[in-house]
Amino acid sequence: MAAKKPRLKVVSLGGLQEIGKNMTVFECGNEIIIIDCGVAFPQDEMLGIDLVIPDFTYLQRNKNKIKALLLTHGHEDHIGSIPYFLREFDVPIYGTKLTLGLLENKLKEHRLTPSLNVVEPGEQLKLKNFKIEFIPVTHSIADAVAMAIWTPIGLVVHTGDFKIDYTPIHGDPIDLSRFAELGKEGVKLLLCESTNVESPGYSMSERTVGQIFQRIFDESNNQRIMVATFASNIHRLQQIINAALKHNRKTAVVGRSMENAVRTASELGYLKIPKNSMIDISEINKYTDKQLVIITTGSQGEPMAALSRMASGEHRQVEIKPNDKVIISASVIPGNEKTIGRVINDLMRLGAEVIYEGPTADIHVSGHAKIEELKLIHALLKPKYLMPIHGEYKHLKLHKDLAVMMGMNKKNVFVMNIGDVLELTDKFAKMEGSVPAGQVFVDGIGVGDVGNVVLRDRKILSQDGLIIVVVTMERQSSAIIAGPDIISRGFVYVKESEDLMDEARNITMNALEKCEKNHISDWSYIKNLIRDTLKEFVWHKTKRRPMILTIIQNVD
Amino acid sequence: MAAKKPRLKVVSLGGLQEIGKNMTVFECGNEIIIIDCGVAFPQDEMLGIDLVIPDFTYLQRNKNKIKALLLTHGHEDHIGSIPYFLREFDVPIYGTKLTLGLLENKLKEHRLTPSLNVVEPGEQLKLKNFKIEFIPVTHSIADAVAMAIWTPIGLVVHTGDFKIDYTPIHGDPIDLSRFAELGKEGVKLLLCESTNVESPGYSMSERTVGQIFQRIFDESNNQRIMVATFASNIHRLQQIINAALKHNRKTAVVGRSMENAVRTASELGYLKIPKNSMIDISEINKYTDKQLVIITTGSQGEPMAALSRMASGEHRQVEIKPNDKVIISASVIPGNEKTIGRVINDLMRLGAEVIYEGPTADIHVSGHAKIEELKLIHALLKPKYLMPIHGEYKHLKLHKDLAVMMGMNKKNVFVMNIGDVLELTDKFAKMEGSVPAGQVFVDGIGVGDVGNVVLRDRKILSQDGLIIVVVTMERQSSAIIAGPDIISRGFVYVKESEDLMDEARNITMNALEKCEKNHISDWSYIKNLIRDTLKEFVWHKTKRRPMILTIIQNVD
Repeated sequence: MAAKKPRLKVVSLGGLQEIGKNMTVFECGNEIIIIDCGVAFPQDEMLGIDLVIPDFTYLQRNKNKIKALLLTHGHEDHIGSIPYFLREFDVPIYGTKLTLGLLENKLKEHRLTPSLNVVEPGEQLKLKNFKIEFIPVTHSIADAVAMAIWTPIGLVVHTGDFKIDYTPIHGDPIDLSRFAELGKEGVKLLLCESTNVESPGYSMSERTVGQIFQRIFDESNNQRIMVATFASNIHRLQQIINAALKHNRKTAVVGRSMENAVRTASELGYLKIPKNSMIDISEINKYTDKQLVIITTGSQGEPMAALSRMASGEHRQVEIKPNDKVIISASVIPGNEKTIGRVINDLMRLGAEVIYEGPTADIHVSGHAKIEELKLIHALLKPKYLMPIHGEYKHLKLHKDLAVMMGMNKKNVFVMNIGDVLELTDKFAKMEGSVPAGQVFVDGIGVGDVGNVVLRDRKILSQDGLIIVVVTMERQSSAIIAGPDIISRGFVYVKESEDLMDEARNITMNALEKCEKNHISDWSYIKNLIRDTLKEFVWHKTKRRPMILTIIQNVD
Repeated sequence: MAAKKPRLKVVSLGGLQEIGKNMTVFECGNEIIIIDCGVAFPQDEMLGIDLVIPDFTYLQRNKNKIKALLLTHGHEDHIGSIPYFLREFDVPIYGTKLTLGLLENKLKEHRLTPSLNVVEPGEQLKLKNFKIEFIPVTHSIADAVAMAIWTPIGLVVHTGDFKIDYTPIHGDPIDLSRFAELGKEGVKLLLCESTNVESPGYSMSERTVGQIFQRIFDESNNQRIMVATFASNIHRLQQIINAALKHNRKTAVVGRSMENAVRTASELGYLKIPKNSMIDISEINKYTDKQLVIITTGSQGEPMAALSRMASGEHRQVEIKPNDKVIISASVIPGNEKTIGRVINDLMRLGAEVIYEGPTADIHVSGHAKIEELKLIHALLKPKYLMPIHGEYKHLKLHKDLAVMMGMNKKNVFVMNIGDVLELTDKFAKMEGSVPAGQVFVDGIGVGDVGNVVLRDRKILSQDGLIIVVVTMERQSSAIIAGPDIISRGFVYVKESEDLMDEARNITMNALEKCEKNHISDWSYIKNLIRDTLKEFVWHKTKRRPMILTIIQNVD
């Protein structure tokens, strides 16, 4: 029997037409490798949901094929779902030192100890159908990599998240020469991130932020300085520490994720902290304002983070005062505008000077390639096929437009959805069918036990509350033995709406008496009658649509 | 008896340390005048709330003093609360022609017909203690005015919302000469808007947007063009209509508020629509794509607006197709990033080209003065005292910093909160006490019947849903006659969590039986026992905190 022609299947279980939970599956023969396993944060309409993780159904069906989980870098949207993944899959994990260091912190909380394998940038990993090389790239976290994957049908490149920074703070710049070599060799398929495809030009080097810190510190004289930023942005932390050193200030760190990141990064050598330059947050009162820099979490205005608690006067160790200068060194992630605005207002109310990203200040640079950087990567790799990844539909579509503008055949660009299968042979590439994919909600301990029915109920309850009607009836006669009692929550302030509630009770009573008189003992009929009667009454009186629950208890 | 020294009291009931519901009260002797009576849109945490209006308590207490409600312009955050105001107050309203035209539309829906008095820009209104002059300013709506108010203690200027546009589309530019004259005469107190105090430089003229429309229309060849913008931005509408005319396209309008605005503005002469240039939306199928421009509501991604319905394929009259070019000519109001992003994704999925404000396109200009424009107004008016208005705390504070930088004594700048009273005599100005002020929630027909208790319940219900326990007991013996029944909504998907619900029922039963055995007939004790027992069980099993309601019905 002739050997079957090799085929490569590429499926994303997250990160297409959505932001977050990035995860892509590559399948060839009886082998599967996975790149990243991220988490997404809930949208506004996902009431009460803590996290969103990918649907692993397709992987469950192909459990034995999975050979490796490969990580591009240590951000939550790339590693955050691993604790849930490991509940079901026992797969070796490969990543760079810092990526695995951050992952280990997370897994400790979940009491998981899987097989973690450190790879060096430039190193290769060989499987039967796949050979993977980890290529250093620059991003807003250290130790990020792209991947080159040699497969039986050709070479595939996955960029991970990246920007082009020629002067990074630590480690090598993005390895453009290697990208050029791969391009020369011939890239069959490029999976390239799309986050900043709406932004023209180039992103600035991380180093430019350091220069601005220096300037702001210069102008701070006797003020106490606080800087809020993303805990995982180790390069940013290094630059803050450097600026503090130059100005003879001690650095203290506050916020659990910030403490973890600083500890892990300095243990692994990614953060250089000179002896005696760092103090514990409990020691800040031993120093004057001009001797201090405090690095804190909460740059997105997260209500439980240290900065928010300082702003609302609820932080145990740090009290904001008029001599504070607070620098929020982060861009606002869409959706967080109001929470961060609230924190800025509160800090200013306490008298602090607040410097935040906006038309007047440049205290943050993006970690994602802008249009001209994307073009450079396309120009170097010259892929035959393109699959834009990491973005909403608009990002993927604009990325396609960019590729077509650079000369690519538009039939060779695949704007896909999660679950869509891209099939490649040495001759062609086409979208062919789909596998299960979607959003699995994590709420408390529960994974997947909250679905659309529950969310719909939460939505109704959140808008107009509920009215509960309880009545006890004799099973045979339909005689009312107790009730009806009417209870409401989230509907109106009952003490001020007694008339309305009395009227509702009367209307219910009338409906029930009618049933009793007519010897109707069909409970579902009675329930519907009460619900419909009350619904109409309430809409007429208030123009609201609370959930109405009728509970009938039977007594023989 | 010597006459009492005249005093002026200035109190804002909205628009300070918040966005929206702008309303300021000026009181002198036995006269009160009010400037604006706007509405605010609910914050995320105000679940189910439709609108937020000012607390009118202070005005109710001084009903007989109120002589006039003066309007600066016709935006919702300046006139939106008038229908609720008119339920309680019978006060003559003064405003320019377009402002009152838009107000009349709104009042018709509420079946109100108060006394509306058209004023011309430049006109003066005389009362006993107040003389008010309406000064033309430019803004993102036509016919906006600032007000100069002569009082016994001196001249007060209220800017309303404004920008400095030397080349407006219709009407006169902002009357800078009059501002200069007033400055010469001597301004005691300036109330100045603060919306764009974070933005350096000058805002561009509205006319620049028209040039960009022309260019985009030039490049549209055979595409059908749609433009989404704010209905009240009459100048923008005029420029779209002009561009359509130049390109031999007919204009159709869709969306109720857009239809109202176009009708009102053209009836009043603010919109010049040449004969035969406008068609009804029902006629669009009689024209080819290149003969059409459709102006639509929904530039903020509002789910019920025309553009959202087109994007989701639910609009009855307009179906999006690949030959459409959709221009969203508006900036994103903070908080709307996600809804507008969703609309853009959906439009692109249907194949449309979408042009939206961002790093790549300038298809919107702000209607509010930026830093250099604010400085110009300060320089012309040279007020003795400043009360920054219209902004969150950060805006008011930055406006104060700007004034101080320009040489003002910081003691003369009053960063206030709603309800705070600023008292002025010919000698001094000081903040002195406060009057009731706050947020009154409108939910359906109800005004003020939803307060914090109801919102707190909605919040709990929205996060983890609720569990209801119902049991019927004999009053004397505490014997269980029916139940306990356990019902949940918004908590877990019950069909997949039967074990959990069974266990919850058993735990409740055990607690009840213990009470029965011990002859406990204190219902509140039993209720608390059940609630606490279930709460602990549910937290242990799910790490969720649903609302738990225990309802006991008694039978004798």
